[in-house]
Amino acid sequence: MALLKDAKGFGLAWEESLGFAQAVKVGDTIYVSGQLGLDDKGNMVGPPPLDDSGRIRDYSNMETQMRQTYANAKKILSQFGATLENVVEEVLYVLDMETAFAAFGPVRKEAYASKRPAVASTMVVTPRLSLPTQLIEIKFIAKVQ
Amino acid sequence: MALLKDAKGFGLAWEESLGFAQAVKVGDTIYVSGQLGLDDKGNMVGPPPLDDSGRIRDYSNMETQMRQTYANAKKILSQFGATLENVVEEVLYVLDMETAFAAFGPVRKEAYASKRPAVASTMVVTPRLSLPTQLIEIKFIAKVQ
Amino acid sequence: MALLKDAKGFGLAWEESLGFAQAVKVGDTIYVSGQLGLDDKGNMVGPPPLDDSGRIRDYSNMETQMRQTYANAKKILSQFGATLENVVEEVLYVLDMETAFAAFGPVRKEAYASKRPAVASTMVVTPRLSLPTQLIEIKFIAKVQ
Repeated sequence: MALLKDAKGFGLAWEESLGFAQAVKVGDTIYVSGQLGLDDKGNMVGPPPLDDSGRIRDYSNMETQMRQTYANAKKILSQFGATLENVVEEVLYVLDMETAFAAFGPVRKEAYASKRPAVASTMVVTPRLSLPTQLIEIKFIAKVQ
Repeated sequence: MALLKDAKGFGLAWEESLGFAQAVKVGDTIYVSGQLGLDDKGNMVGPPPLDDSGRIRDYSNMETQMRQTYANAKKILSQFGATLENVVEEVLYVLDMETAFAAFGPVRKEAYASKRPAVASTMVVTPRLSLPTQLIEIKFIAKVQ
Repeated sequence: MALLKDAKGFGLAWEESLGFAQAVKVGDTIYVSGQLGLDDKGNMVGPPPLDDSGRIRDYSNMETQMRQTYANAKKILSQFGATLENVVEEVLYVLDMETAFAAFGPVRKEAYASKRPAVASTMVVTPRLSLPTQLIEIKFIAKVQ
């Protein structure tokens, strides 16, 4: 018998061209693909300035993209009737630790609506994410009852 | 009472010397270690050309290694009576985003035998993987019934 | 009905200021945040020598920090009545592959008290972890009965 998977997306063209789901629910667990700071029109919020060779010149928009990333996670979880309160684990991949570390507390406390989010969290630096103007990507595991 | 773990490997010498399992099943969940592009004899497929200091000169074999990595994931899952259809989450660690992004759609659609794999997926760049000629590593979580 | 989460920490000030849990248990699964090589007083064990610009000069303390990281994972798991035997998956983020690869076998066999730990394992290089003297971070998923 085939495994019963409930797969959801945002209805974006590249979800189909790339061939993946924004989130998949099996049983009581929801696996959420790495989310990023795109707005509803598919544009990156707070795109950083690039130099002539396409390298990111500063990371000061980290907080802006982090906030949008949690908004998108919330949006995809809502398709399963879940919220960020259902998140049990998150992994943050960031291009710069200093700016991400500074935003980590305030942005997440606001997003999780809690002074002490009950979430296991890991944050590491990566040299490059999928899109050239992307500063952060976060993947999640959530549990439902 | 000890936890009942079903651990599997490929029978390679370094699984024992390093001390890990290629995959572990507990209950309905299979956790698969980062897979890579080794063939049945333990040789890297599509090893990239290295310069005099051992640095990788180009990433054009990314697709070849990606395809082999999924073949190996399929192989280890089969030991549990599972297939790639059981995968719910994958994380791809790649040395180069451009070549990996180009291969991502076609290779995975073929591997998952689906135009729209129901898999949560995250891909990030890492500067270095375990083996010097390794371009990609992918870890998986699969669910069985 | 709200999801029942059992969140644990070490009682450190920055767990509250940053707003996360060292580990969260829901049902039979424990998600452990990236652990690092801090001692009981919150000091990094084996801090590497830094050059004038704050860059790490050598990675020879990798084994020391790796051992302490497993000790801390053991400590947080014990709060749930679990041990490292309950671990099913680990992801190691390291600043240097050579030293980490050399330490991987011996340190883990000792930590897991097994010649062949039944753990799915993935190790990748990251350019930078949370703290400037941190050489390694490891996240875990554990299962209990």
